[in-house]
Amino acid sequence: MDDPTLAARYRTLRRDLHQYPEPAWCEFYTTSRLIDELERREIDKLRYGSAIHATEGRRNVPDDTTLTEWRQRAREAGANDDVLETIGDGVTGAVAVVERGDGPTIALRVDIDALPITEADSDDHQPTAAGFRSTNEGYMHACGHDAHATIGLGVLDRVLGSDFTGTFKLILQPAEETISGGKSIADSGVLDDVDALLAPHIGLDHPSGEVVAGIDEFLAVRQFEATFRGESAHAGARPEAGDNAVQAMAAAVQNLYGLSRNSAGGTRVNAGRVGGGTASNIVPEEAFIEGEVRGETTDLMEYMWDRAEDVLAGAATMHNCEVTIERLGDAPSAHSDAALVEVVDRVARRTTGVDTVVASDSLGGSEDATYLMQRVHQRGGLAAYLGVGTDHPGGHHTPTFDVEAQDIAVGIDLLAGVIADLAADVSAGNADAA
Amino acid sequence: MDDPTLAARYRTLRRDLHQYPEPAWCEFYTTSRLIDELERREIDKLRYGSAIHATEGRRNVPDDTTLTEWRQRAREAGANDDVLETIGDGVTGAVAVVERGDGPTIALRVDIDALPITEADSDDHQPTAAGFRSTNEGYMHACGHDAHATIGLGVLDRVLGSDFTGTFKLILQPAEETISGGKSIADSGVLDDVDALLAPHIGLDHPSGEVVAGIDEFLAVRQFEATFRGESAHAGARPEAGDNAVQAMAAAVQNLYGLSRNSAGGTRVNAGRVGGGTASNIVPEEAFIEGEVRGETTDLMEYMWDRAEDVLAGAATMHNCEVTIERLGDAPSAHSDAALVEVVDRVARRTTGVDTVVASDSLGGSEDATYLMQRVHQRGGLAAYLGVGTDHPGGHHTPTFDVEAQDIAVGIDLLAGVIADLAADVSAGNADAA
Amino acid sequence: MDDPTLAARYRTLRRDLHQYPEPAWCEFYTTSRLIDELERREIDKLRYGSAIHATEGRRNVPDDTTLTEWRQRAREAGANDDVLETIGDGVTGAVAVVERGDGPTIALRVDIDALPITEADSDDHQPTAAGFRSTNEGYMHACGHDAHATIGLGVLDRVLGSDFTGTFKLILQPAEETISGGKSIADSGVLDDVDALLAPHIGLDHPSGEVVAGIDEFLAVRQFEATFRGESAHAGARPEAGDNAVQAMAAAVQNLYGLSRNSAGGTRVNAGRVGGGTASNIVPEEAFIEGEVRGETTDLMEYMWDRAEDVLAGAATMHNCEVTIERLGDAPSAHSDAALVEVVDRVARRTTGVDTVVASDSLGGSEDATYLMQRVHQRGGLAAYLGVGTDHPGGHHTPTFDVEAQDIAVGIDLLAGVIADLAADVSAGNADAA
Amino acid sequence: MDDPTLAARYRTLRRDLHQYPEPAWCEFYTTSRLIDELERREIDKLRYGSAIHATEGRRNVPDDTTLTEWRQRAREAGANDDVLETIGDGVTGAVAVVERGDGPTIALRVDIDALPITEADSDDHQPTAAGFRSTNEGYMHACGHDAHATIGLGVLDRVLGSDFTGTFKLILQPAEETISGGKSIADSGVLDDVDALLAPHIGLDHPSGEVVAGIDEFLAVRQFEATFRGESAHAGARPEAGDNAVQAMAAAVQNLYGLSRNSAGGTRVNAGRVGGGTASNIVPEEAFIEGEVRGETTDLMEYMWDRAEDVLAGAATMHNCEVTIERLGDAPSAHSDAALVEVVDRVARRTTGVDTVVASDSLGGSEDATYLMQRVHQRGGLAAYLGVGTDHPGGHHTPTFDVEAQDIAVGIDLLAGVIADLAADVSAGNADAA
Repeated sequence: MDDPTLAARYRTLRRDLHQYPEPAWCEFYTTSRLIDELERREIDKLRYGSAIHATEGRRNVPDDTTLTEWRQRAREAGANDDVLETIGDGVTGAVAVVERGDGPTIALRVDIDALPITEADSDDHQPTAAGFRSTNEGYMHACGHDAHATIGLGVLDRVLGSDFTGTFKLILQPAEETISGGKSIADSGVLDDVDALLAPHIGLDHPSGEVVAGIDEFLAVRQFEATFRGESAHAGARPEAGDNAVQAMAAAVQNLYGLSRNSAGGTRVNAGRVGGGTASNIVPEEAFIEGEVRGETTDLMEYMWDRAEDVLAGAATMHNCEVTIERLGDAPSAHSDAALVEVVDRVARRTTGVDTVVASDSLGGSEDATYLMQRVHQRGGLAAYLGVGTDHPGGHHTPTFDVEAQDIAVGIDLLAGVIADLAADVSAGNADAA
Repeated sequence: MDDPTLAARYRTLRRDLHQYPEPAWCEFYTTSRLIDELERREIDKLRYGSAIHATEGRRNVPDDTTLTEWRQRAREAGANDDVLETIGDGVTGAVAVVERGDGPTIALRVDIDALPITEADSDDHQPTAAGFRSTNEGYMHACGHDAHATIGLGVLDRVLGSDFTGTFKLILQPAEETISGGKSIADSGVLDDVDALLAPHIGLDHPSGEVVAGIDEFLAVRQFEATFRGESAHAGARPEAGDNAVQAMAAAVQNLYGLSRNSAGGTRVNAGRVGGGTASNIVPEEAFIEGEVRGETTDLMEYMWDRAEDVLAGAATMHNCEVTIERLGDAPSAHSDAALVEVVDRVARRTTGVDTVVASDSLGGSEDATYLMQRVHQRGGLAAYLGVGTDHPGGHHTPTFDVEAQDIAVGIDLLAGVIADLAADVSAGNADAA
Repeated sequence: MDDPTLAARYRTLRRDLHQYPEPAWCEFYTTSRLIDELERREIDKLRYGSAIHATEGRRNVPDDTTLTEWRQRAREAGANDDVLETIGDGVTGAVAVVERGDGPTIALRVDIDALPITEADSDDHQPTAAGFRSTNEGYMHACGHDAHATIGLGVLDRVLGSDFTGTFKLILQPAEETISGGKSIADSGVLDDVDALLAPHIGLDHPSGEVVAGIDEFLAVRQFEATFRGESAHAGARPEAGDNAVQAMAAAVQNLYGLSRNSAGGTRVNAGRVGGGTASNIVPEEAFIEGEVRGETTDLMEYMWDRAEDVLAGAATMHNCEVTIERLGDAPSAHSDAALVEVVDRVARRTTGVDTVVASDSLGGSEDATYLMQRVHQRGGLAAYLGVGTDHPGGHHTPTFDVEAQDIAVGIDLLAGVIADLAADVSAGNADAA
Repeated sequence: MDDPTLAARYRTLRRDLHQYPEPAWCEFYTTSRLIDELERREIDKLRYGSAIHATEGRRNVPDDTTLTEWRQRAREAGANDDVLETIGDGVTGAVAVVERGDGPTIALRVDIDALPITEADSDDHQPTAAGFRSTNEGYMHACGHDAHATIGLGVLDRVLGSDFTGTFKLILQPAEETISGGKSIADSGVLDDVDALLAPHIGLDHPSGEVVAGIDEFLAVRQFEATFRGESAHAGARPEAGDNAVQAMAAAVQNLYGLSRNSAGGTRVNAGRVGGGTASNIVPEEAFIEGEVRGETTDLMEYMWDRAEDVLAGAATMHNCEVTIERLGDAPSAHSDAALVEVVDRVARRTTGVDTVVASDSLGGSEDATYLMQRVHQRGGLAAYLGVGTDHPGGHHTPTFDVEAQDIAVGIDLLAGVIADLAADVSAGNADAA
């Protein structure tokens, strides 16, 4: 990308998004800001709100107080009131459609939500030094979704400026971090006519200049919240009258991490957020674990889940507590199709700024893009998940994560190139590729 | 107490306080409401704000956001703006002085703060049925301090209406539940001229009609907050890069409760409030335990503390975390003086509504009244802690705790009688009694 | 005791017993050695073997292999073959009866078993320095039962040499440490005609020269063995196929110690012996906890037991294991009768070598003498448990426990005096005393 | 193998070995029995005892009592006294050498030790039904080493009966299960002239009729014993005087299993054998964990080791105990050489009874054959580890593991064929293959 004006525009956009990180289903400012951008462009259809969600089945939607608080923040940050009206119940995100005659329907999915992490404030952290550190204290774009959204807009610009024939859909997906938005978008049907779905991710421990043409081995994941309920009591005067929910929770944490490894493949377990009790002198009546299990296959994830249920039940029994277990989200496994990966590989090798092309890699984590990929596969389309390297100083989901600006440009060039080639292949009668 | 008007007034006061429970150092409405009452009476000195606190050493003062939030609630509930101005930094509570010529200086200490407990909302819970359930959701007068404050005002009225000679001090102490207010008041010196200190407590598992003349065996207590700090990481992609603070915390909880019993006497330990982590897919970087240890003697409490420090340090080592331990509060042991207890016992036996007088009992819990008792003892005065029974349906510190109205009246009669006798004893030259 | 010949004889006996410590129900050498002593004296009845045991209900009898091994050791140490024949199934201990005409029936109970503790071998440990350290490596008289048996013989000598009228029964009780022998002896009926039962204990943290006239507050106790059964698997190749019994056991241990303290009184819990698994590379299929709970009252012990059962069940559930819980032994509470304690107190005050008489103390531990005391109480007799101090360097049940020789003499003098006084009281018509 | 006499002979040998399972370094009967067999054959050199071991560095040799006990058992089972004299210190195993002129030196390694597992005694377990269940109760050939030894003898017979030219070495290796024998044999130098080393394993979850030509991905392993030392005390009378080693151990077990998974590859951890304490009423002074960590690479194993050390240290700190950590054994990773694997693959395809040939598989477990493979590689030779399937009803290291007789025959045919081909290849000048 050689146009300095464009580069500056994308940098501004990304930095703006970075300053207003919003958690899953609360991307009110982000959605409004992106819709502003979209409305300035000549797109054929712009859809958002309940039109792009299967609202019945939405998971992990925050309570009204939280939604209200974030709507308020968005308003103060300058979000559009009309947009807020439409998306205010947490139906965030948007879909933009460009229709250019006969040709394949190609979708690009980027995710837009942020994480509950406090951003580093040291001067060697670029966003701090350059003045675009998070203004929503305690929240941060620590996984690069600000870059993803920017890439989405950039690719849209390139499609608009090209002789592309066919249909292009830009999917701005909310709520990826809680594994909730992907299923909601997929179930809404907006992807049902898609021939080829591309989903990029920045970083993933790959350096600047490296592209991964096809990513596989998405860990299947299930997130849950377990709530232990016992009986409170005065911890000095009558401790024996209590049934200690924090003891039950701690026993569960100790033994959840101790679930046996499995020789059939990698597994994961995390008690990522826990809490319990009210004051130091009260035997805790209630405690919770917000956690997850994962597996390299769905079977491995289910193995972990079965065992986790035993641990949670046993921990409650130990301390005469009740436990209720709520499933918060799942994501299946999925695969990148070889025919699409081949095109990405080919285009990457000719893209400026790309030094190395890795044919394939495993994700190691989970992604609810797999819901979208699954949906496209079920309808006979193809899907690929690909990686664009960047020299990120801190790991994903840490306070010092950051993205190099030029790698956003590489991502735009790469994806624009892939879309062009896919459309051209179809014109050339190469039906296999898409 | 036979005056129905007075009974109604005290009931109204107690129910009003019950509806506005406020946590330690945030008793803004409560203090304002009580000062309103005091100002309507003919007292000689009324002191509040930093005049009655050793502000340097105050412990467990909430952060500004919390103070601001509770000030705001108090204002909305009708608190006096001038009072709020004076006490707004959390220097809550008040001291009222009645000076009636030569005679002993007698102090009555009552505490006024509430607990972070959600009050029962079932109809068999009297405050709910009668419409004075807590309006500060999540907070509750679950230890009877609303009754204590009411007793304080009632005794003041009786002293004012009597031929008492000497000095009477009513101490409305904040922040008992966090073992913070007692020390602050004691260190301010307001008790330094006191000959006899009386501190009553309602309930304590004694039924209506029962009085405990002297309570002893206060458990020594130390409250603390331990914070574990590790390293966050993506729980799916790179779990090995994390140092899991929640695992450290859970190991500590399991082993804190497992500290050995001691044959020298009773001990306690509680991890009353815990938490950690930010999201299900992030290896938790930070976790905390807000807890306490107790002992029937200070030595036993220190035994528990020494062992607790080992557990906290070891738990951190286990998971490559750092732990910092902050002491939040202590309360020493103390004893009730026989000479005072004898007067309480004597008066109780002639008080209407008292069926049974228990000579002495052990508290079983902790109380920062011991700081005030200690201070009075150091200056050569006497002190007694006494109990006024009530048929409380739920235990102290539980959602269904409640107090019978007539037992508040018994408390007023009893204490007014004791003060009268003490003053009379001194007039009669019985120097031993006070 | 001024007779140097006697003193030397008792020293020899005690040191001999000390060298051959034997665990519960395996006191083959000890019983044989004591029967040798008894047979040299003019006693009227000597009973041992199944005659003095309720053999049906005996608890914690070791398996045949263990019995055989200890019989073999006893034989090698010089035990009498005929005696071994009679007691060989583990019906150890003996009862000697002296009948001297009309008068009260007075019983003295001493226990004779040792502990599975490795004795200290440093030179500042007296038995090591003086050459009578345990020759049964791994076992030790670490609770003074060698001294108890010696006191028993000494008192018998004194009764035999006196003008005592009445009946004297010396009970040499086995298997106290496993809370098994007391019930077996009591249920056999050998105490059913006893008017007064005396049970002494040496040490108990009281120094040389101190006597405790009446000990109370025996902790009620229940001992148990919990066995966890899961599924083994190769720990490298197929860990997921295992159900890990050691994980279940460890979770149980962590949470058993964490059972809540009780404001109603002291409690105890111990997982005193644990084990599990077979090799480092096999997921453990089986694990066990041999433990106990105690309480200052039987109710408190039952409180601990109820909660312990929850912990054991929950731990098994956690790791998909089965748990079976076997009760190994119980001991009730019991009290020392004031009438008897008074006599002990009186005699102690005139006994040479006694500096201090403590009227009463709590045991703090458990004792199956309470079964014998209970039986005597049920038949209308009296019972007292008393303490004879000694400067023991290490605590009871530790490798450096030891007893001062002169305190054995004090014990003999004291008990002989008490028995003489009790008999004389009865002659004098003082029916209350016995 | 069509010779019914031979088949019967091998069946007899295997069943005899199966009846006398012996643990690592105690294979006295097994070694003697195999030496008897070897001496009946025309081999050129037979070596055993310290001649084939680097005795200095031997690990995990049991104590003298254990060695004596197993020597005694071997003697009673009919072992040769002269052989026992030579191998009695635990230098078990043997090496037989056949020298047939010029040609490659080819070694076959089989292991001979058994496991501390109690064999199933149900009638559907073939060894029980057919009367050759383990007579060493508590020990079992639960990993097929009885079959391995039999295969070794069978292959020797085939080499002896063929026109093989070159040198053939049969290595009967002891102490594989404790990862001890392989290093001892390797370091002795007996393999230093070997051109090709073959190491077979039966079963490994592959069914009868399946051969795995080359096994890779041996998990690197480190075995350890951690000993916690605290302070004992009477659990009823003075629990606070103890420092509880079993609590420390249990905390360590809970947190060892909780060590974080690693995204770089598979890891394992097992606390395979644990124990502690002496009696239910004594606070445990000592406890131990015999465990292991593994990793798909040595780096992953070291990652686990580093974290395990933290856990063990922290657990000790928690309960004021000391911990000492002894490394018991390691095994490195190793690989099977393609040139050798190719020959195995080729021969397997023509071997009767083989239906399926799997080119390669991962072991999933650890094996100290890797020490021998490493040694051979260092000297320029080749090595392959191969699998011979069998329908084993229970998993390896479980009480119902068993081997089908015909699969032993398949193993003999396969390996004899491979050795013939390797010798022939060399004769034919194909230096690459060996």
